[in-house]
Amino acid sequence: MTAEQRAYVDGLLRRPRPQKSQTLEELRAGFSGMMASMRVDDHVRTSHSSLGGRPALAVDPRRNAAPGVLLYFHGGGYVFGSPEDSLSLTSALVACTGIRSVSLDYRLAPEYPFPAALEDALAAYRDLLDRGIEPSQIAFVGDSAGGGIAATTPLLARDAGLPMPAAVVALSPVLDRTMTGRSMESKAGIDPLFTRESLQATRAMYLAGGDPEHEYLSPAVLADLAGYPPLLLQAGGNEVLLDDSTRMAERAWMAGVDVVLDVTAGVPHVFQSFTGVLDEADQALDRAALFLTQRLRA
Amino acid sequence: MTAEQRAYVDGLLRRPRPQKSQTLEELRAGFSGMMASMRVDDHVRTSHSSLGGRPALAVDPRRNAAPGVLLYFHGGGYVFGSPEDSLSLTSALVACTGIRSVSLDYRLAPEYPFPAALEDALAAYRDLLDRGIEPSQIAFVGDSAGGGIAATTPLLARDAGLPMPAAVVALSPVLDRTMTGRSMESKAGIDPLFTRESLQATRAMYLAGGDPEHEYLSPAVLADLAGYPPLLLQAGGNEVLLDDSTRMAERAWMAGVDVVLDVTAGVPHVFQSFTGVLDEADQALDRAALFLTQRLRA
Repeated sequence: MTAEQRAYVDGLLRRPRPQKSQTLEELRAGFSGMMASMRVDDHVRTSHSSLGGRPALAVDPRRNAAPGVLLYFHGGGYVFGSPEDSLSLTSALVACTGIRSVSLDYRLAPEYPFPAALEDALAAYRDLLDRGIEPSQIAFVGDSAGGGIAATTPLLARDAGLPMPAAVVALSPVLDRTMTGRSMESKAGIDPLFTRESLQATRAMYLAGGDPEHEYLSPAVLADLAGYPPLLLQAGGNEVLLDDSTRMAERAWMAGVDVVLDVTAGVPHVFQSFTGVLDEADQALDRAALFLTQRLRA
Repeated sequence: MTAEQRAYVDGLLRRPRPQKSQTLEELRAGFSGMMASMRVDDHVRTSHSSLGGRPALAVDPRRNAAPGVLLYFHGGGYVFGSPEDSLSLTSALVACTGIRSVSLDYRLAPEYPFPAALEDALAAYRDLLDRGIEPSQIAFVGDSAGGGIAATTPLLARDAGLPMPAAVVALSPVLDRTMTGRSMESKAGIDPLFTRESLQATRAMYLAGGDPEHEYLSPAVLADLAGYPPLLLQAGGNEVLLDDSTRMAERAWMAGVDVVLDVTAGVPHVFQSFTGVLDEADQALDRAALFLTQRLRA
């Protein structure tokens, strides 16, 4: 029974936030502070690294690593966040699967708007391939905006003539910058984190005046997914972004892609970061770990 | 790489079938013969049993059983099949999870049309509850028509004032007797097993003139799923019945139900029975096993 846990997490996210407008630095520090309260699995060790010319955080299992590598993209609306901020998720997946991860410190908006983050992701993937790692041994994984990067980078790879990775796992991904999902309205007020307005604010920094009607910005409504790799989408039932996942899933099965759409009711955006607090978080990560293990098995 | 396996299974199912019209007995024997070729996991032992006044096949793990019980419903269009015929699936799930199963020999059409099978399923569930098993320790599981029974019986339980089981796992379920899914057309010819006409033939025996516009016959398009238990739907991308699963999943997430929709591309109806032949079968059953284990954990 985790109804109490779900209510506790919801209440946590509804705590009053600063009323006065904040600088970008204050917003980033606030995001990091919130994420720093999440539990990091101690069965991993981290080290600083780089990938495709960007800094990265290597997250390795303490014991013998299983085959493969998880190329991880942190969340934060393309404006906040860092590999360290998403370490609760990355460490949990590395500990569960035994598969090492490299978490990319991609460039953020508004300093570096679209498509900087995606270019960094593609460069990181190319770097892994250049090091001799088989694409069948690479999975793209990410949460929130990073889930969007994980799910969008295969399109850039395709357009660059690169092979597909073995799998994509996207946790509460941002996949529709046209913001036309029904959940944008049906989950308004139910979502303890986001409103249409708050999403529009970070979107404006990322788009920098660009048109959201682009396959790389709104793959859930525009992408051609023929030849796309096996895809796991996880979302919370209380998210205004729920339909970013449900519509991406529908596009995937219509295009002949292996796809698992995994919706947990009554939980918020990136609920998986509440490991150890919310049973649903641990269970969802265990399901993601099995999916990754199946796809990266030697 | 399992493209060869997928092609092999597809070819197997396209082998020419008898041209002359067959008696019901011949059809049932043909179905049993096909299912008898599937691998049965030998880490289980079976014994004859009964449940709610109907015969049943108990399928137990050879080692200490994990908590819970899987109430299993075999496939066969409500006209064919038996617990023995679906033993490849039941045994694989019992072996994977360590959870014991009771597979119900429910009444078949045309001798016993709708709602006989569902009445037997409800009686079996009530019997388990009367034996003191907690609903939180019972999952409904089934394939094809049995997937339909697994996913529909919670509605009968609700209407009878009984508590919900812990979970439902439906493999390629039949959930729409109005036959209005887009996949009925888009997968015509791609589906190596079924055509609209072949489905209509068994449907006629089950409906016996009744109206398919009933919540118990077409839950994917009609059911109110408020309060419904956590649901896993698995389907093959080559099924005309694919949208039975996709629309049931959509109803579930809209109703605030935990739901996993798991679509494997390029495989047929109840591909999971090809354990040991098709990697996708074993992997899908492993995912189903994790889902069940998470929901029935003591």
